[in-house]
Amino acid sequence: MIKKIDHIGIAVKSIDDSVPYYEKALGLKCEGIEEVADQKVKTAFFNVGGVHLELLEPTSPESPIAKFLEKNPHGGVHHIAFNCEDVVDSLARAKENGVLLINETPKIGAHSKKIAFLHPKSTKGVLTELCQDGECCCG
Amino acid sequence: MIKKIDHIGIAVKSIDDSVPYYEKALGLKCEGIEEVADQKVKTAFFNVGGVHLELLEPTSPESPIAKFLEKNPHGGVHHIAFNCEDVVDSLARAKENGVLLINETPKIGAHSKKIAFLHPKSTKGVLTELCQDGECCCG
Repeated sequence: MIKKIDHIGIAVKSIDDSVPYYEKALGLKCEGIEEVADQKVKTAFFNVGGVHLELLEPTSPESPIAKFLEKNPHGGVHHIAFNCEDVVDSLARAKENGVLLINETPKIGAHSKKIAFLHPKSTKGVLTELCQDGECCCG
Repeated sequence: MIKKIDHIGIAVKSIDDSVPYYEKALGLKCEGIEEVADQKVKTAFFNVGGVHLELLEPTSPESPIAKFLEKNPHGGVHHIAFNCEDVVDSLARAKENGVLLINETPKIGAHSKKIAFLHPKSTKGVLTELCQDGECCCG
């Protein structure tokens, strides 16, 4: 079951140039900037009433975000992520209803979340991520 | 001040074709379908943990959504709307920080909300709406 919108992934040409826009013009507070080497992106997070904006800057021309920016040179919304009670169940439900899965099983993403992507060809044009919060490791 | 994400506007070719995807494949519940003649769109709303998805189908070739679909034939995210404490204050803050306003003053949108759009050329590629809940009319 989908509980809430986890985050909105936004492709940007430059984190350094975009964070001041979100902070000054919109008055939001950046929670942190980190590089995710695996995904070839640098990210910045903003918490907006419990939903995150995730800015994504490519760190390599092979990054999927670099390809997105070739088509959308000003940047734009790259994906929507839904937070699920059980991501395996939600993936199975999507597949049963004809959705093409980019990830048949979840992988581990930032903040130890289980994440999987659905193909935009079968989600009415919106690249869609399903995710589930990681388990707490502090017993 | 921005309080939360109000909704994500998603352009679709067909509401009739898209609502079953969101209901069956994602398990979300459609809250209602209505036509907004003024904007030349038919809309469907889904409440996802307090944030709405707003599907938008053009009802005329002159609709801004029709133009978006010419560039993005499969559909996609059209805009993000932020719910503000005071939309006039938030617009002033954006303008002071160099943002180009599509609406210098708010207009009244669906559900009696005050709404105004920021130009994507000055918002890092994301068409951005600022909105404020309408006042209750029941005294």
